[in-house]
Amino acid sequence: MKSPTWIRVVMLGGATAAASAAVLAKSPLQSPAPSEHAPAYTADGLLLVPADYREWIFLSAGLDMNYSEKADISGMSMFGNVFVNPEAYRAFRETGTWPDNTQLVLENRNASSKGSINKHGKYQTVETMGVEVHVKDTARFDGGWAFFASDDGIAPAQKFPATASCYACHRDHAAVDTTFVQFYPTLLPLAVKKATLSERYVRDEASPPVAHP
Amino acid sequence: MKSPTWIRVVMLGGATAAASAAVLAKSPLQSPAPSEHAPAYTADGLLLVPADYREWIFLSAGLDMNYSEKADISGMSMFGNVFVNPEAYRAFRETGTWPDNTQLVLENRNASSKGSINKHGKYQTVETMGVEVHVKDTARFDGGWAFFASDDGIAPAQKFPATASCYACHRDHAAVDTTFVQFYPTLLPLAVKKATLSERYVRDEASPPVAHP
Repeated sequence: MKSPTWIRVVMLGGATAAASAAVLAKSPLQSPAPSEHAPAYTADGLLLVPADYREWIFLSAGLDMNYSEKADISGMSMFGNVFVNPEAYRAFRETGTWPDNTQLVLENRNASSKGSINKHGKYQTVETMGVEVHVKDTARFDGGWAFFASDDGIAPAQKFPATASCYACHRDHAAVDTTFVQFYPTLLPLAVKKATLSERYVRDEASPPVAHP
Repeated sequence: MKSPTWIRVVMLGGATAAASAAVLAKSPLQSPAPSEHAPAYTADGLLLVPADYREWIFLSAGLDMNYSEKADISGMSMFGNVFVNPEAYRAFRETGTWPDNTQLVLENRNASSKGSINKHGKYQTVETMGVEVHVKDTARFDGGWAFFASDDGIAPAQKFPATASCYACHRDHAAVDTTFVQFYPTLLPLAVKKATLSERYVRDEASPPVAHP
């Protein structure tokens, strides 16, 4: 019997499927020493995408989230899955904020509607669409944090320059320490309890929503 | 300053927020012995919802997935996050299928569109809408697996009777061992590689999609 198309895609579809398999093959889900999840860089300052981030702590997933008033008309539909290294998660539970060496990984993944027996709504497919990492490394970055992106989620990730809009947006609107804890439903109650929400965030949430460019 | 409404909801909103905090407080994210994640039951056969499932391995998230031709007109919008116990995940990576004592936890969570700075798409909020668990316990269940549900994700979960439609649907349409691995994007390539896909699933996927009642 001829293999159905989707099986050939999964088996031979190149970077994405092969990379997923490589990620899975590389990390044996042992209990690593904390230093194993510290950010690592190439000599020229690129960030190595953590090979085992799919085994880190899941914080939340969104679909086609967009902070701009204007709707996205690209026609693309993507889930964003967010993971954090276990050491940082443990620290957040204790303190309501992030320690040095925190890495928040946003994995973008294709959203499909009709496939197998699914008829409505959206599910995630094997096609990834890049990875972004938000890294806290106070010895390395002005402001303590930096954003990186890898188009295929495999190649070392390039740093966004400090002038990129992500920095200003996170500084101005993030619930905790420049991170969007308002979208991480198990962490938000902890930040409330530990009183680690930013003053500006609390004030903005108490007022009608502000326009965002 | 008066607390904004959402903060009061998070702090005082009763079962859901309190439960999230309790779940987080209870499990110190140590490396547990495998037996810690084996299914546990009450004397009358209810399943204890694993307190630390949010720290298990995330498999995928869907939004408003529906296997019926008829659209859902309830007006509710929910994400479904799926987690598996780490021991079962490790075994799946080795073998392409599930060992005894596998627990797949589906957490249903409210989907919102506009909130904080988000303007489009959907994100997850602190309100959970129940948990379902698919348990492999071959000594206990005919067919090896059973489905359980807990309305609040805290109370022990009730078993669906063997006549419930979930059993027939999973038996007939699941990619691997009655589980919907076709919707778990990092596991599907492993099942292909290990040749553990069900024959019927491979045949159905090669043909035009079948109608589903």
